[in-house]
Amino acid sequence: MADPCFEKVAILGVGLIGGSLGLAVRERGLATRVAAYSRTPATRDRAVALGAADEAAASPAACVDGADLVYLSMPVGAIVPSLADVAPYLRPGCLVTDAGSTKREIVEAVGRLDLGAACFVGGHPMTGSECVGVEHARADLFDQMTYVFTPGPATEPATVERLVRLARGLGARVVCLDAAEHDEAVAVISHLPHVLAWALMAVTRERHEAGQPVLDLAAGSWCSATRVAAADPLLWRDILTTNRAAVVAAIGDFQAALSELRELVEGGCENSILAALDPLAQAKRRHSERT
Amino acid sequence: MADPCFEKVAILGVGLIGGSLGLAVRERGLATRVAAYSRTPATRDRAVALGAADEAAASPAACVDGADLVYLSMPVGAIVPSLADVAPYLRPGCLVTDAGSTKREIVEAVGRLDLGAACFVGGHPMTGSECVGVEHARADLFDQMTYVFTPGPATEPATVERLVRLARGLGARVVCLDAAEHDEAVAVISHLPHVLAWALMAVTRERHEAGQPVLDLAAGSWCSATRVAAADPLLWRDILTTNRAAVVAAIGDFQAALSELRELVEGGCENSILAALDPLAQAKRRHSERT
Repeated sequence: MADPCFEKVAILGVGLIGGSLGLAVRERGLATRVAAYSRTPATRDRAVALGAADEAAASPAACVDGADLVYLSMPVGAIVPSLADVAPYLRPGCLVTDAGSTKREIVEAVGRLDLGAACFVGGHPMTGSECVGVEHARADLFDQMTYVFTPGPATEPATVERLVRLARGLGARVVCLDAAEHDEAVAVISHLPHVLAWALMAVTRERHEAGQPVLDLAAGSWCSATRVAAADPLLWRDILTTNRAAVVAAIGDFQAALSELRELVEGGCENSILAALDPLAQAKRRHSERT
Repeated sequence: MADPCFEKVAILGVGLIGGSLGLAVRERGLATRVAAYSRTPATRDRAVALGAADEAAASPAACVDGADLVYLSMPVGAIVPSLADVAPYLRPGCLVTDAGSTKREIVEAVGRLDLGAACFVGGHPMTGSECVGVEHARADLFDQMTYVFTPGPATEPATVERLVRLARGLGARVVCLDAAEHDEAVAVISHLPHVLAWALMAVTRERHEAGQPVLDLAAGSWCSATRVAAADPLLWRDILTTNRAAVVAAIGDFQAALSELRELVEGGCENSILAALDPLAQAKRRHSERT
């Protein structure tokens, strides 16, 4: 057990991420107590029943009352309004972070809020699952994963240090990035793969509806390529709209790369195909070996 | 143990698929004996050492000598030349099948060979791994997988029945399709996902080389989407060139679907994005529940 990093952690939004944070913080002794709030009373009671919180708060204000860490883990579009709601109730010196998958819009909008003597640093735990909800929460969800924080120029080093200690306590590897830099990178590494999975599902559905035996033959490569298509469209609507420019740029780069491969296949030159695929296969193998 | 379906099985090409076939046939008693040939002597000796064959044959002709099943499991481009080489040595009544990932070109080319009193039926075990080579062979590689056969109009029902019995003996589910129909379906369900994985690797590499922290942030969705990019470029060169028209058509359909999603993200209309993603996420969840 680590020394507690925080006295009271307030989790607003106890789905997969918030629930897993609560489980991990309690299991690893990273806080003295954990309060959870969710709009649906049954969800916050379930969070307590599952061990993700010590107490279910009846309101966001009650949840953050006396907390020295407020953790916002709701869909991206709800983060800023939720923080605006609880801002008047934050304890001075309280540290606020979020778990939103996009950062630039959130960080900019939070900068326009009056947080009094509390301070906000954007965060993005690069973990999750296509299974959502507190019932899928796991204390080891952050283990070995990357946790990004996006401190601003005005963030005190001691504040960042507290968050790094928390994330490492969860078992994660910490990366600090500028919010815009984060958004460009995740557009390629996370948002683009989701868009590709949905596009492949769309093609598969068309072929299936045209009577082709595509689903009968679905093998490993299709299953991997479409795995994240099961992700929650409500969460992803928010992610795609709050990272629009970077996602469109990533799709554009992908379209160019795909057109090149299509031309190679159309051309049918075996040597050119091999020369294109070989370094890509090697790059993937090198990455797999490293991780 | 099943009754042996065959007296002698001759495996030409003992990599992942041929080696796994040998292991499974021997472990499940589907043949009285298994001979293996590979161009590299060390590979055929390793196949015997690993239990994938009873004997290593010194030549393709020796391997097929007396065999009532010849199994061609080499890269797609080598299948027809290899069969042409051993055609004069096939025992009358011998059944020949292959494990190539594309079928139309192979079936047409084999139709132009003189196999004497032997008979050929195309096959495609829809299994595999990005790890190739006999050392990755596993007796359960076919278990729960789909095995496609592409009998022609002249194929005797009894011949198909023997192959179905073999594939079921391996634990696979059997689907019989026309060769062209198979190729169109696998273009979408297998070849397209591979092309997408390579295109995503190309984009990732570009961004990485431009100094973006994309690989630092690589999370589950990217890992799944690029998993098969590690596949063997030599095998895939053959697959893509022998299924060119169907692969190009599948890429074309994908480009159209991706352009539609890009327009939705660019438009930024939350309701339209949700309306597009929701049925795709549901389709994926339904498929995952069924399998």
